[in-house]
Amino acid sequence: MDIKKKITDANTEALFRMEKIRPILVDIELEAYNIIPRMTKKTILHAGPPIKWDSMSGPLKGAIAGILVYEGLAHDLKEGYTLAASGEIEFDSNHDHDTVGPMTGITAPHQPVFVLEDPETKKKAFCTINEGRGKVLRFGGWGKDVLDRLIWMKEVLAPSLKKAIKLSGGIDIKAIIAESLHMGDEGHNRNRSGTYLFLSEIVPYLYNSVENEIAKDIFTFIKENADIFHLNLSMPHSKLIADAARDIDYCSLVVAMARNGTDIGIQVSGLGRKWFTSPATMVEGLYFPGYSEKDACLDLGDSTISEVIGIGGFSMASSPAIVSFVGGSANEAVSRTRRMYEITAGTSGTYTIPFLNFKGAPLGIDIRKVIELNETPLINTGIAHKDAGIGQIGAGLTAAPVQMFQEALRSFGKKYLI
Amino acid sequence: MDIKKKITDANTEALFRMEKIRPILVDIELEAYNIIPRMTKKTILHAGPPIKWDSMSGPLKGAIAGILVYEGLAHDLKEGYTLAASGEIEFDSNHDHDTVGPMTGITAPHQPVFVLEDPETKKKAFCTINEGRGKVLRFGGWGKDVLDRLIWMKEVLAPSLKKAIKLSGGIDIKAIIAESLHMGDEGHNRNRSGTYLFLSEIVPYLYNSVENEIAKDIFTFIKENADIFHLNLSMPHSKLIADAARDIDYCSLVVAMARNGTDIGIQVSGLGRKWFTSPATMVEGLYFPGYSEKDACLDLGDSTISEVIGIGGFSMASSPAIVSFVGGSANEAVSRTRRMYEITAGTSGTYTIPFLNFKGAPLGIDIRKVIELNETPLINTGIAHKDAGIGQIGAGLTAAPVQMFQEALRSFGKKYLI
Repeated sequence: MDIKKKITDANTEALFRMEKIRPILVDIELEAYNIIPRMTKKTILHAGPPIKWDSMSGPLKGAIAGILVYEGLAHDLKEGYTLAASGEIEFDSNHDHDTVGPMTGITAPHQPVFVLEDPETKKKAFCTINEGRGKVLRFGGWGKDVLDRLIWMKEVLAPSLKKAIKLSGGIDIKAIIAESLHMGDEGHNRNRSGTYLFLSEIVPYLYNSVENEIAKDIFTFIKENADIFHLNLSMPHSKLIADAARDIDYCSLVVAMARNGTDIGIQVSGLGRKWFTSPATMVEGLYFPGYSEKDACLDLGDSTISEVIGIGGFSMASSPAIVSFVGGSANEAVSRTRRMYEITAGTSGTYTIPFLNFKGAPLGIDIRKVIELNETPLINTGIAHKDAGIGQIGAGLTAAPVQMFQEALRSFGKKYLI
Repeated sequence: MDIKKKITDANTEALFRMEKIRPILVDIELEAYNIIPRMTKKTILHAGPPIKWDSMSGPLKGAIAGILVYEGLAHDLKEGYTLAASGEIEFDSNHDHDTVGPMTGITAPHQPVFVLEDPETKKKAFCTINEGRGKVLRFGGWGKDVLDRLIWMKEVLAPSLKKAIKLSGGIDIKAIIAESLHMGDEGHNRNRSGTYLFLSEIVPYLYNSVENEIAKDIFTFIKENADIFHLNLSMPHSKLIADAARDIDYCSLVVAMARNGTDIGIQVSGLGRKWFTSPATMVEGLYFPGYSEKDACLDLGDSTISEVIGIGGFSMASSPAIVSFVGGSANEAVSRTRRMYEITAGTSGTYTIPFLNFKGAPLGIDIRKVIELNETPLINTGIAHKDAGIGQIGAGLTAAPVQMFQEALRSFGKKYLI
C-alpha cells in the first residue's frame, strides 16, 4: 500500500475515533491526586509542554507559589517561591496526566477536579473548576480574595456540585457544546451559552443536593462567570476526544497543542508522546483599560485543545459576538474558520456551524497541510499579565508558530517515509 | 416647516420614544380580566385585527370553543362552538387591549397573564404564558391533555412564577432580548437563549418561593419548551415598545402588525387606532412530517409585533440556526435583514446584530418606504393546521401583503398632505 494512502487511512481512523467519543461529566473528585494518574502530594501540574522552574513565565511562577500556599506547603507567597525553586516539588505537563487547564493550568493535589468519562472506552480526562475572570490564580493572580475563593470552591462549590452531578446520572458535555455552537459560543473564549445549558442540566439536582441558600450561592457564582465557567468542562471534553486519536501509526494529525507562557508545543498521533515546541507567541487583541501589549505574558494555556478538535478559533464563524472580546470583525471570524478547513483532515459530524449552512467544524489538524500551505492553526485566547499577582489583562488572537510543525513533519518523515 | 421634515421629525421622535421604554416583567396576574382594560368575564381576546365569528379560521374558532370549556362556560367543545356563535361572547383584538398573543392569541378572562411595565411611564402590556409546541390551544389544538396543561399552568405554574417574579423585584426583558440576539436568537421563532437567560434570572427566586419538587416541575416545563417559552415575554416586551410610538402626528411608522388567520392588519402611529387590513397570506416553510401546505391555516398571530420593533424576521442575521426551523439558508437570513434596513426609519440602539458588526437592528417600519420600494416586512412564523383540534404543523416565512400599506399611505396622505 502506498504511503499516502496509509496516512489518509490513519487520519480517517483518527477522525472516526474522535467522532465516537462521548465525554460525560460523571463526577468531581475533591482531591486531584486521588484520581489523576502519576500525581503525588508533591506534584504540581501546569499548562503546555514540560518546563523547568527557571524557564517559567511570571504568571506561571506566581500561580505555583500561590497554589503551594493553598496546599498548606508554604505559609506565604515568598515561602512558596522558595519551595518551588528548591527542587522538592515535581512539575509536569497536565497533558501527560490526562489533564488540561486554562492559562497557567495549575492543577494541585488537593484541588477538586471535574471527571469526564467516555462510557464506552471508560477513558477519563480531568480539569479544575473555573474561578472566573480577572484576578484569579490561573492567570497568575494572587491575594486573600483569590485564596478565599479557592477554599470556598473546594469546601462548598465542589462537594455540592459533586452530589448534583451524581444525582443527575451524568451530563453530556458534547451535546452541550454542539448546541452552544448554535447559540453564539465557540467553546473556547465564549462559553456563555454552554454555561447556561450546563446550568439548565444541573439546577434541579443541585437544589436537591444542598440547602437552597448554598444552591443559590453556587448558581450565582456560575451565572456571574457565565462567559468562562463552561470552559473548564469544554476543555477536558476536548482532551478526551483528542486523546482518542493518539498513537495511530501513520496518523499525521495533531492530538495536543498547548502553551506554558514560554513555549508552545504540539504532539502528533503517529509520533507518540514527544512534544515539538517553539517559543510562545505574542497575542494580538483587546486589552482591558490600563493595560497594553507591553504588559502581556506570551501565549499561555492548554485551552488550545479546543482548536485541536475543531472548536474555539476553528469555529469562530459560530460566534460573531466574540469579536467584541478578542478583536476583529465578524467577516474575519468567518474567513478564519474557512481557512482552517484548508489545514484539517475532515469535518466534524457533531459540531456544525449555522452560518456556514451547518457545515461541520474543521476537524483534525494535519501537520502536512500546515507546512504545505504555510497556514498554521488560529488560536483565540485570554492574555495574562507577564508579572505574577495581577491576572487577566485582555484577550485576542494569535497563530501557532510554524517551526514546531516543521520539526514534527521532519520526525514524521524519518519515522514513516524512509 | 415642510411636510417631509415634519414626518422625519415625527418618526425620529417615535424611534426615541421606543428606545427609552424598558419593559420589566413585574408580575403575573392570575385572572386576566382583573388587569386587562375593558375585559369582562364574557370577553375573549384574539390575535390580529378584529374579526367576527363567522369569518374566523378553523384554529381560531377551535381555540375559542376550547377556552370556553376552560372558562367553565361550556361543558364540551360542541357547547363551546354553540356559545361562541350565539352572540353572547364579546370578541375583540388583543392589540386594542394592551395585549398580544402568539398564533390564535386567545386571551380569556380566567387565564393568567404576564404583566410587563415600563418603570417611567408605568404603561403596561399583557400576554398569556406559553404552552409549548405541537398540540396546544394557541394553535387551535384541543384534547384532555391541552385542558389539563392549561389548568396546571393556572393552578401551579402561574402562582409559583408570580411569587418568584415578585421576589426578584422584576426582570428586565429588554436586556434579555438584547443579549439573546448575541446568542443565536431572533426573539420571534427562536427564543432558546432568551428562555435560558430568563431561567438564569428566576431560578433562585423560584426555589425560594415554592417547594423544590414544584420548582423542579416548573423548571423542567420551561426548559423543555426553551425554543418558544420566552416568546410570550418577548411579545409583550415588543408591544410595550411599539405602543410608545403611537399617536404621534405626522408619524408614518407602523405600531402594530398582526394576523387573525383570515386577515392581516397594521396600525400606523399618525393614524390612530384604525386597522388597515389585507387577506392573510400563505406561509412558505418547513412542515412537520405528515403535513403540507394544503393543511395550513393562513398566517396567524400577534407575534409580528416582533418585526415592528426590529427583532424576529428583521434580525434573522442574528440567528443563522433558525433556518433549520423556518427554511432557507444562513446567507438568505443575512440578506433578508439587510433588505429590512431599506424600509425602516432607523436602527436600534439596544438590539445589535453581531454578524453585521453589531449594527443596530432595523427599527421602525415606514409605510412610505414600503410603498416606494415595493418591499414589505419579512415575517417568520409558526404554521397552524387549518382545522381546529390539531395544532402546529410547521414554521416558515412570508412577506406582509402590500395592499394594506397602500391603503394606510392613502389615509396618511388624506390626513396630512392635503
